[in-house]
Amino acid sequence: MLHLFNTITKKEEPFNPIDAENIGMYVCGPTVYDFAHLGNARPVVVFDVLFRLLRSQYPKVTYVRNITDVDDKINAAALASGEDIREITIRTTKAYHEDMSALNALPPTHEPRATDHIADMIQMIESLINQDYAYVKEGHVLFRVQKYEKYGHLSRRQQDELLAGARIEVAPYKEYAGDFVLWKPSTSELPGWDSPWGRGRPGWHIECSAMSQVFLGKTFDIHGGGVDLVFPHHENEIAQSCCAHQTERMVNVWMHNGHLLVNGEKMSKSLGNFFTVRDVLRDYDGEVIRLAFLSTHYRQPLDWTDESPKNAKATLDRFYRAIEYATNDDAKTDLIVSALEDDLNTPLAISHLHELANEVFGGIGGSQIHAANTLKACGQFLGILTQDPQTWFQGSVDNRAIEQLIAARNEAKKAKNFAEADRIRAQLTEQGITLEDGPNGTSWRRA
Amino acid sequence: MLHLFNTITKKEEPFNPIDAENIGMYVCGPTVYDFAHLGNARPVVVFDVLFRLLRSQYPKVTYVRNITDVDDKINAAALASGEDIREITIRTTKAYHEDMSALNALPPTHEPRATDHIADMIQMIESLINQDYAYVKEGHVLFRVQKYEKYGHLSRRQQDELLAGARIEVAPYKEYAGDFVLWKPSTSELPGWDSPWGRGRPGWHIECSAMSQVFLGKTFDIHGGGVDLVFPHHENEIAQSCCAHQTERMVNVWMHNGHLLVNGEKMSKSLGNFFTVRDVLRDYDGEVIRLAFLSTHYRQPLDWTDESPKNAKATLDRFYRAIEYATNDDAKTDLIVSALEDDLNTPLAISHLHELANEVFGGIGGSQIHAANTLKACGQFLGILTQDPQTWFQGSVDNRAIEQLIAARNEAKKAKNFAEADRIRAQLTEQGITLEDGPNGTSWRRA
Repeated sequence: MLHLFNTITKKEEPFNPIDAENIGMYVCGPTVYDFAHLGNARPVVVFDVLFRLLRSQYPKVTYVRNITDVDDKINAAALASGEDIREITIRTTKAYHEDMSALNALPPTHEPRATDHIADMIQMIESLINQDYAYVKEGHVLFRVQKYEKYGHLSRRQQDELLAGARIEVAPYKEYAGDFVLWKPSTSELPGWDSPWGRGRPGWHIECSAMSQVFLGKTFDIHGGGVDLVFPHHENEIAQSCCAHQTERMVNVWMHNGHLLVNGEKMSKSLGNFFTVRDVLRDYDGEVIRLAFLSTHYRQPLDWTDESPKNAKATLDRFYRAIEYATNDDAKTDLIVSALEDDLNTPLAISHLHELANEVFGGIGGSQIHAANTLKACGQFLGILTQDPQTWFQGSVDNRAIEQLIAARNEAKKAKNFAEADRIRAQLTEQGITLEDGPNGTSWRRA
Repeated sequence: MLHLFNTITKKEEPFNPIDAENIGMYVCGPTVYDFAHLGNARPVVVFDVLFRLLRSQYPKVTYVRNITDVDDKINAAALASGEDIREITIRTTKAYHEDMSALNALPPTHEPRATDHIADMIQMIESLINQDYAYVKEGHVLFRVQKYEKYGHLSRRQQDELLAGARIEVAPYKEYAGDFVLWKPSTSELPGWDSPWGRGRPGWHIECSAMSQVFLGKTFDIHGGGVDLVFPHHENEIAQSCCAHQTERMVNVWMHNGHLLVNGEKMSKSLGNFFTVRDVLRDYDGEVIRLAFLSTHYRQPLDWTDESPKNAKATLDRFYRAIEYATNDDAKTDLIVSALEDDLNTPLAISHLHELANEVFGGIGGSQIHAANTLKACGQFLGILTQDPQTWFQGSVDNRAIEQLIAARNEAKKAKNFAEADRIRAQLTEQGITLEDGPNGTSWRRA
């Protein structure tokens, strides 16, 4: 059974889905103004592994990862390069998709862009103002953190402690220095949307609250991101969502991956230890980066050094050498295809399958492995050998037993004992036998 | 290269598609009034093998197989059982799908029902009348076979010979005994549609001409069916289609599978040697029937005896015993899944992969095979080992070589030698390197 470490309880807990038919997961995505660096890529790979695991265990997993395409960093990049904002975000999103795909990360189910959900954000901010959780001042809308008593629960900070943090902006339009921005005014040269508070743009945190609700509802299973997002971003998401929707919980399981360091230090352009994903992709396959990430547990800090991709590559080389044994015998496959290409010479193709079986039973080592795999793969050309051998050999229900059960069911029906008749039908259904009552009695077939 | 025996030339010929981007194939499907018998199933399995082969070699294959749901045999069955015609055709179509699916036959791309295409048939008949290839008499429309000089080419019969065949109905409304029905009048108790010739229903042959054109066009690649359909059905299809469309050819390759006999005789209810597919499915898996069919070349008559499924089952048992070696080590797979279930313990999962590689390099026989396959299969949980080992080891292009080529391309562009610049880009593209020209020069990445 799946157990996940929950940041909010600081414990590993069994995973109990809200709806086992559809698991909901939200992970904070990129702000699209530059190529993704290694630190951006780590959560993508980590939560891709979780996505794959959940998909293998549940019928449906809805995985949402946003694209932040309105942000002051994007505005600054546009100002610096003279490029149009929309050109930057489209180009950078495309590059991001290329890079994440090179890392074998599956695309999320939904990948909403913030600028497509401004109306949802405005609606949520209005609800917060109406409930007095937010106030308008000088064209800004601010969240009143002192009104939400659970503020700080995720990051385990006391409200006063919060103020001690250096990153909180003191501003004249704030009632309290810890209040955070939901909406801010835009000058004419900045991107802006009409709102009840004048032309402006959203604060950083509101988009994830608004978009997660649109795609996953008011309370969902898993929210992930890097550990640097615990405070203030995720703390603020919780405050916004729980206050707007008057819910106890926004998310059941909060998951955070550790920092990515380079040679033991925080990656930064000024230190010269800054790597984009495509920098590394020039020298290494995406699987190398992926395995290097996964070789450290996701909650640990990951120290990226020259050795990291080298070691991961050596490991992958070894694994690939091992699975070379599990590949097919192309020469034999070609013979089988050639037989079919000769006016569908299926008898000849089948004789090649017999030769493969001979090889399995009489060959040694590698040749045996090749033959067994090739036999399995080549069955597809003829539409046979599609089952697990175990299923094939487990033996099916005896025909006479089926006929006897059908007779017993007919007797039960005659005696108006419909419960018994239904029980017998259910028993047969379980054994893979479908009954069909018709004008000429009951017929049956194997499902 | 694919070679197919063409009934119309009586030769095996290389297959030259009309459009290699989209292969068109039409196979005559069932008349839905009773369960499918073994003879109905043989062409389904034969052309399913061809469909699979074509799909493995061409990007798109459009496979059309019709459902004949208007026919005098259906009317007779309804009269006999008192059942509604539509109930019979819907129920029988459902049973047909179940049975063909049990034989591992892939569903065709399109499966049109005749009654959904009456308007297309009326339109085609009108075109034949307008061109004098057909005439109206006593509410019937008949095809004037003596007017189409190629009539008899597929079945290699002289027109006079045709009349010697016993199955041709002499009727007062026929100009010539060999003429065949395109449309006939319906009494009020029979299914009928309004037409320029009064209320009536189509003759047997027109539906395949009309529906093949709708889905595959006026000339398409392959038309298949049982050998009993060569004359008159396919001969008449050609006459209808080529005359209506004024085309040389309706189909490039005509393919026909041989008869199915039971104990050396034609299968018939009166001889007591009549087997429906579901009769045999009670005793044998669908793969057994399939392999029994494919053990004889499709153009040969197939003699079904008690030994046929017994032999096929013995062969499949042997093949499945052989591929048991190619299955995974479930215990190790479980260990890897359990590691991930423990808060995504990827380092532990990777250590299990190492153990599998140890087993491959140090184990013997069966255990080696299991380990190699399991390693390959378990890579998917981590999103690694997704490539062919050959691709992985073939070595990628050296970075320095790429940079040198980009520099050469820039020189060529400066010298306005754009042909050379394009050549270099094409060379890099072929090596899997994508170039992107931007404001800061040319960047590159591996595709």
